[in-house]
Amino acid sequence: MTLRKPKVAIGQAGGPTAVINSSLLSFIEEAMKDFEVYGIIDALQGLVEDWFVHIDQQAFAKAQHFREIPGAFLGSGRWSMKEADFDKCIEHLRKRDITHLVLIGGNGTMWSCMQIERKASEVGYELKVLGIPKTVDNDLSVTDHTPGYGSAARYVAMSVRDIGQDLRSMRNFEKVRVIETMGRNVGWLAAAGALLKESEEQPPHLIYLPERPFHLEQFLTDVTTTVNSVGYATVVMSEGVRDEKGRILSEITLNGTDGPKVLGGASQFLAQQVVNKLKLPARSELLGMNQRSAQFAISAQDLREAGELGKEAAILLKEGITGMMLTIQRESDELGLYKYQIGRCRFDEVAGKEKLLPNNFIDPSGTGVNQTFKDWLRPLVGDDIQGFPEWSYPLSKI
Amino acid sequence: MTLRKPKVAIGQAGGPTAVINSSLLSFIEEAMKDFEVYGIIDALQGLVEDWFVHIDQQAFAKAQHFREIPGAFLGSGRWSMKEADFDKCIEHLRKRDITHLVLIGGNGTMWSCMQIERKASEVGYELKVLGIPKTVDNDLSVTDHTPGYGSAARYVAMSVRDIGQDLRSMRNFEKVRVIETMGRNVGWLAAAGALLKESEEQPPHLIYLPERPFHLEQFLTDVTTTVNSVGYATVVMSEGVRDEKGRILSEITLNGTDGPKVLGGASQFLAQQVVNKLKLPARSELLGMNQRSAQFAISAQDLREAGELGKEAAILLKEGITGMMLTIQRESDELGLYKYQIGRCRFDEVAGKEKLLPNNFIDPSGTGVNQTFKDWLRPLVGDDIQGFPEWSYPLSKI
Repeated sequence: MTLRKPKVAIGQAGGPTAVINSSLLSFIEEAMKDFEVYGIIDALQGLVEDWFVHIDQQAFAKAQHFREIPGAFLGSGRWSMKEADFDKCIEHLRKRDITHLVLIGGNGTMWSCMQIERKASEVGYELKVLGIPKTVDNDLSVTDHTPGYGSAARYVAMSVRDIGQDLRSMRNFEKVRVIETMGRNVGWLAAAGALLKESEEQPPHLIYLPERPFHLEQFLTDVTTTVNSVGYATVVMSEGVRDEKGRILSEITLNGTDGPKVLGGASQFLAQQVVNKLKLPARSELLGMNQRSAQFAISAQDLREAGELGKEAAILLKEGITGMMLTIQRESDELGLYKYQIGRCRFDEVAGKEKLLPNNFIDPSGTGVNQTFKDWLRPLVGDDIQGFPEWSYPLSKI
Repeated sequence: MTLRKPKVAIGQAGGPTAVINSSLLSFIEEAMKDFEVYGIIDALQGLVEDWFVHIDQQAFAKAQHFREIPGAFLGSGRWSMKEADFDKCIEHLRKRDITHLVLIGGNGTMWSCMQIERKASEVGYELKVLGIPKTVDNDLSVTDHTPGYGSAARYVAMSVRDIGQDLRSMRNFEKVRVIETMGRNVGWLAAAGALLKESEEQPPHLIYLPERPFHLEQFLTDVTTTVNSVGYATVVMSEGVRDEKGRILSEITLNGTDGPKVLGGASQFLAQQVVNKLKLPARSELLGMNQRSAQFAISAQDLREAGELGKEAAILLKEGITGMMLTIQRESDELGLYKYQIGRCRFDEVAGKEKLLPNNFIDPSGTGVNQTFKDWLRPLVGDDIQGFPEWSYPLSKI
């Protein structure tokens, strides 16, 4: 007689990343050894609405093809949990006898994990909960970095390099491009735009981070100075840049004035300022959804780490661990090579917290990042992308 | 005693492509055998302003590294030629004894080539002129397709697939994304968004081309129908879409109201219409400069053809050919495999003309393209990018 395996449910919450399915599938693969596995459709909403799928061997065989495909395989979405929602979650898990829960998500999701665990304990349902970190914004605390960020950073680094090179060659027609990255309140993605810059002259020339207050007049002065010295200006800015009063420069409403708000569009405002006040031809570039979904920008290291965290979550669950989010702990050996271990932290150490780009990564000028940051970032995006060579043309005298 | 080699000058005009330097460098490599080679900085403006560089072996060795780097190595830009400008061109070429001229560019550039040749003939200067086609828009007539388009189409195809997949997984939060491609007056790039779609359910669900008049009410109906049946809608549209009166939906001015105008922003207008009139959460995505500059999206076939046209231009010049733009002539063998030959046409066959997406590529519904188009496109972007598998989750009954 065989004992029935305990049941675990897993969901993917918040904005997807290009490698989020690597975490999911490595988790399922490992978990199937000891658990009966359920997928939660559309994450938190599915938990509340009772949308579960049983992932048997056959379903897993199909799902396997999605390991390197962007978007959340199980569906994701955004959902604000209310107190009554937590009761429903427990009710749905209990009726299925699901005793283990794993959510892949960011700091909001980890807050929900903490609340679900609390609620289970309050109503006397024994539930073990783990979190697997995921976000392109890289704003989770405790962990050195978060799966999803490496691939998004790779996309930003390549795009800024290529768009900058394009502008250089068009500088008799256009003078300024303002490239906008994701990142909500943190500058990690905007900072990645500097990775492939190898000299003062090369783009990007200016980077604006939410970690420093944004001054419009200073920005216009910076652009003027750059155009005068380099001949054109490539600017990178985070969507979350704020002025000294903490006001963001733009906000898009998805569904009229009452709908959910998403950031985006600050670059358009700034390009218009350059046109109006400096009388320089300028254009904005919103890097958009490709940052979190471009399959062609997936970093091999990011994909690997996302998978390893998924697998480790299954192992920890089997060991009976609960109340934890997995982390990546960076360890450098004597040669300075990149090494890391998988660690963990309590939900309350990350829930609702935001990790800013630290001061020691930011250039004192406030308009860029330094080599320390680039050295930190490089192993996460891979060595196979490089900056372009420099050149200049001495005009022929004859 | 050796005879002095004749002199040739080459320039790169108009918006760059990701493979434009392949044409340039293959031309130079071949031309150096028989000519002394000069580069024209910033193309037409450089011709008028007398900005030439001598490309000797040493300069070529440096330039070689730029074969697969986006942006125009010699600088490009936009410049409207006036009658007096043509006189200056001839003057600058004559004083250097440059008897051969090659411009890499689109239909506007071929018009300039034609005028320069005419002016040379009028003033009795013997000048041979050839054109190498280049444009991501693919709007040049006579040639089957134009170098630069394959890589841009590859970028669009991958982006639409990935952004569509991302939206699918977020459909409880967002319902509609309107993705805007380049293409001025032609739908070639927007059409490429359909390449990796493999079923009705998969994105993109709707494609709007400048070849068909755009009706806002019909668009809103199409979006509603799609959201009702699929659950979300991924829309692809060309920046050049026009209403029945020929008005474009949006136009961005680079330098205030007096500056040069560029297209872009129609998607934002349409997303706003979806929000306001259908009360559905919608966002716009402007694919932007990456379309013409993303190194990571370069199609190997496109790169090869761009190089072959460059080399062939040098061979034709040596043979004394003038007044021609090179073309790509597609020939299919019995097995339906992709084959082509390099041909040529007179400047007046392409100058100022625009090649629309033909009717036999457009789906009768007017909101997409057909398999004939996809079969035509596939060899230009490569077989190594594919659509994603389909899947659905049967909800668990327990």
